[in-house]
Amino acid sequence: MDTRARPDISGRIGALRRKLEETGLDGYVVPRFDEHQGEYCAPHDNRLAFVTGFTGSAGVAIVMRDRAAIFVDGRYQVQVRDEVDLETFAIEHFYDAPLKAWLRTNLRKGERVGFNAMLLPSTWDADCGRAVEGAGGVWAPVEEDLVDAIWTDQPEKPLGKIMAFPVTYSGESVADKKRRIAAMLAEQGVDLLIEAQPDNIAWFLNVRGRDVAFNPMPQSFLIFDRYGKMVWLVDHRKLPNDLSDFELDDVSMAEPGQLLERVRSMAAGRAALIDPGFAPSATARATRAGGGTVQLARSPITLAKMHKNATELAGFRDCHRLDGAAWVRFFAWLERNAAERDSSGRPVSELEAEERILAYRQMDESFVEPSFRSISAADGHAAMCHYAATSATSAPIKRGGVYLLDSGGQYLTGTTDATRTTAIGPVSDEIRRAYTAVLKGLISMITLKFPRGTYGHQLDAFARRSLWDLGLDYDHGTGHGVGHFLSVHEQPQRFDRRVNEIELTPGMVTTIEPGYYKAGAYGIRIENQVEVVDDGDGFLSFHSLTLVPIDMRLAGLDLLTPAERQWIDAYHRRVAQEVGELLDNESLAWLAERTVPIGG
Amino acid sequence: MDTRARPDISGRIGALRRKLEETGLDGYVVPRFDEHQGEYCAPHDNRLAFVTGFTGSAGVAIVMRDRAAIFVDGRYQVQVRDEVDLETFAIEHFYDAPLKAWLRTNLRKGERVGFNAMLLPSTWDADCGRAVEGAGGVWAPVEEDLVDAIWTDQPEKPLGKIMAFPVTYSGESVADKKRRIAAMLAEQGVDLLIEAQPDNIAWFLNVRGRDVAFNPMPQSFLIFDRYGKMVWLVDHRKLPNDLSDFELDDVSMAEPGQLLERVRSMAAGRAALIDPGFAPSATARATRAGGGTVQLARSPITLAKMHKNATELAGFRDCHRLDGAAWVRFFAWLERNAAERDSSGRPVSELEAEERILAYRQMDESFVEPSFRSISAADGHAAMCHYAATSATSAPIKRGGVYLLDSGGQYLTGTTDATRTTAIGPVSDEIRRAYTAVLKGLISMITLKFPRGTYGHQLDAFARRSLWDLGLDYDHGTGHGVGHFLSVHEQPQRFDRRVNEIELTPGMVTTIEPGYYKAGAYGIRIENQVEVVDDGDGFLSFHSLTLVPIDMRLAGLDLLTPAERQWIDAYHRRVAQEVGELLDNESLAWLAERTVPIGG
Repeated sequence: MDTRARPDISGRIGALRRKLEETGLDGYVVPRFDEHQGEYCAPHDNRLAFVTGFTGSAGVAIVMRDRAAIFVDGRYQVQVRDEVDLETFAIEHFYDAPLKAWLRTNLRKGERVGFNAMLLPSTWDADCGRAVEGAGGVWAPVEEDLVDAIWTDQPEKPLGKIMAFPVTYSGESVADKKRRIAAMLAEQGVDLLIEAQPDNIAWFLNVRGRDVAFNPMPQSFLIFDRYGKMVWLVDHRKLPNDLSDFELDDVSMAEPGQLLERVRSMAAGRAALIDPGFAPSATARATRAGGGTVQLARSPITLAKMHKNATELAGFRDCHRLDGAAWVRFFAWLERNAAERDSSGRPVSELEAEERILAYRQMDESFVEPSFRSISAADGHAAMCHYAATSATSAPIKRGGVYLLDSGGQYLTGTTDATRTTAIGPVSDEIRRAYTAVLKGLISMITLKFPRGTYGHQLDAFARRSLWDLGLDYDHGTGHGVGHFLSVHEQPQRFDRRVNEIELTPGMVTTIEPGYYKAGAYGIRIENQVEVVDDGDGFLSFHSLTLVPIDMRLAGLDLLTPAERQWIDAYHRRVAQEVGELLDNESLAWLAERTVPIGG
Repeated sequence: MDTRARPDISGRIGALRRKLEETGLDGYVVPRFDEHQGEYCAPHDNRLAFVTGFTGSAGVAIVMRDRAAIFVDGRYQVQVRDEVDLETFAIEHFYDAPLKAWLRTNLRKGERVGFNAMLLPSTWDADCGRAVEGAGGVWAPVEEDLVDAIWTDQPEKPLGKIMAFPVTYSGESVADKKRRIAAMLAEQGVDLLIEAQPDNIAWFLNVRGRDVAFNPMPQSFLIFDRYGKMVWLVDHRKLPNDLSDFELDDVSMAEPGQLLERVRSMAAGRAALIDPGFAPSATARATRAGGGTVQLARSPITLAKMHKNATELAGFRDCHRLDGAAWVRFFAWLERNAAERDSSGRPVSELEAEERILAYRQMDESFVEPSFRSISAADGHAAMCHYAATSATSAPIKRGGVYLLDSGGQYLTGTTDATRTTAIGPVSDEIRRAYTAVLKGLISMITLKFPRGTYGHQLDAFARRSLWDLGLDYDHGTGHGVGHFLSVHEQPQRFDRRVNEIELTPGMVTTIEPGYYKAGAYGIRIENQVEVVDDGDGFLSFHSLTLVPIDMRLAGLDLLTPAERQWIDAYHRRVAQEVGELLDNESLAWLAERTVPIGG
């Protein structure tokens, strides 16, 4: 029996509909976005879960007086039907049948749809607005959020402490960053930048914070005037009294609630750059209301931050050595325990494994927190790409099964993210073939030499071809950018089938993570983090940051080419060398065994 | 001394500028496009060459009262400086600094720029119009073309005879095509299609023609009403009196000059689909003037025609056997003659080789004409990707040199396009390495198995990787669509670094043509035409149509993998089998020698 109290969704929907009546609206948009449009939001901001019961990390709902719908992507089609009342909500697909399409075809003439412009980026505001007007309705921004108004026990906004992130770690002073960003604004022909992305602001101001789990940066806003003036809109309670460690001399401080008022006053007669996908459309509306003009374009901070400087890159290499040592200790422990404990009837569980790698990471004082919720997944669980073990689901890691661990850490020197797949005991030929194909995909991608002017979507297929040869594939991207002690998923570059507009250039840090998933049976993924490096004469290549042995016991060695075998041996030689010196004898013995050359 | 008469460009510019004064304009746009926006134009339409002296196949000029500029792409940066008076024309880059950018920054307030809306597609009309208005100028369509008005000895429009192209060749009746296209128009929510692309019209009406060299289709326009009415606007002198072989029963005929008047009258109160890149913007303007609405979208005929039907595909396979036999006869002849004649001081010339392969193609009665001007290029000439030999440049094919032939034919059953590179005698290690890398690129691409939902830009890099490994690359696309006894360059699918929006699907015919070019020294390209075929379980692959031996004497066999060697041997086995039966003994002996297995 499930003893968790079910939230009173129908009561909340009723309250929201009464609010609609009071305010003269016919419907209201409830997004999963917060004011910073990030992947994670604080409990304060999970309005979508409050209104619908859906707890996934992406989605949007529309609640009309007499009907409602929720839009979630492919990952969540099962979960949403489990969590949401299907009599109240129609289930729609976030990408295939998005909200804007729903509005265009389902809205009745004259219906007024309200939304909170602090919670929608400009692209959404424009697209939905056009759809509503196309259907003969009215698209109406509200002053006060309607969900907040009915959410009596809404959690407070987070007040995580902010710390200075000194140049010894960040590698560039705020003053230098200001000059660079000001020049980029001048190039774009704008005066102001209005920034709402917490990682961009943390990077710019050399600060870190702790408002949201796994994301070491404070929620705040920034208005930067390229002639020098800068206003940081951040809750003052998050900052220490003594700011002498910070580089905030030329920065005015204000409370976040003043954002729109400040935008209106600073924008008069000026041109403001606002990110169309990652800033509240309310800032664009306020700019225009204040007599300014808006240029919707990717934030220059996103474009500056994507190139890691020498200090950041040295930090990445350092923390990957530490992280590699934690992985090796973990696997040595797993191997000492998994088979034996399975035999004696008290197998290692997914949650215990997750706790164990965290404990090994915590052995180093530069480790801060996990960089995301680990995917510690045995057998069929690993076929769910976004699985997170709970006490209810935590499965045993058993002999004859396949175990996948996707895990990473936030270190003061950088952010890690890696995946390894292993097995306790021998695996079937089918699994061996699939594992080998995934491994060949990783090697094909990681050994690429490619010319400047290349984009992620041109390379993505190299990671897939060995699977395609078997008639297999995986339904996710091949790699994402990684922040420097910031978000583990960092815009803008990526490896994906979908088109990405960002040219690959030296100093970018990304993952490469091909996989294969058989529903209900097993999941395989091998992921290395890499740095894009200059290879001379107009060519680039990748340098592996991740230093974790790849389990060759699952691979079909006869299926590997001489070049692939050479890469494996060279990589394992590096891992043994760079990680070995950080280990105890027991882990070192395991590492030596797992990095024995397989031979050309 | 060059005895060719130089055209009197300054006289023509003077005349054009007097016309500007007469008509109250300050400038005029002179495009290379004709009314059908194709790659080739008739002498009647080469207004750009008449006004500027530039004879390349793409470009545009702007002639203002006091200044002028010409815009050509990377291929023509040398040639344009040779042909054009640099005191009169500034030289600009077609893509990097296009006309619209020039207009925005160089136009003075109030200047009126005229253009002929029959010669510009809607994208150009809109982009340039916005630029002119942005600069405070006026964008003014003219009724009569200003260049035609001053071109006293302008050649007549072509009057090539039109022939019926029966269903035995085309595989689908006009009636069936009408039903299909009408359904696509209904799906798009439009009533009319206004079509100006000669190949689309030829495909739709099952006709072929001969207005422009290499392109066996008539210049004409078509207005198709999805409720059944169809008007074909074509010069009646091109058609025979007896139309009984044609499928034109339900088709009204009109003269091309009536186009805009017909559009205006048929568009009243209707929605018309017009291709934004391949139809005169004058048709969109006429639609609106007639009280209709315009939907700018890719022509549904382009999207229907790209999938070749079973009859067309069988025809492609047939004509490639014939074409393969012509290639083999050619190479056998070249090998009998080249070295010997070089020794005796009267080497084979590029032009002679080009004539020779034409003669071998002409041995079959289904051959109609070359599908493009052959690139018959020795040594450094082959490094110019669009080289065409003339009596002035035609170089000898000599011992120790590298010879490239890119050549194809128009057959009643299909269109061919292939490239082979060979050498008379041994080649250097450098050339061998580059040739092997090009060959590996071809094999990598041609052996791909890939899932449905894949686009050309995702696969392009497979053809380049072996070159990238050597720090080399080529500066052109990897492959283009091919028409069925239509244009050798056919929209819309392609393999390229640039994004292509068309999903690869079975029945598409394209080329795969990696290359490597060293300026002034040599050029290497190996090109096969392929068909996209279903590979089962949601996967696709390629089937080679081209049946021409690949010269393995230039390849480093030790650099090939076992899989690559197996592909070569299997391919050569097919070539020997399918082409062998069409050959005389002498050519057969050559073929046998050139298709000897190299072994796994």
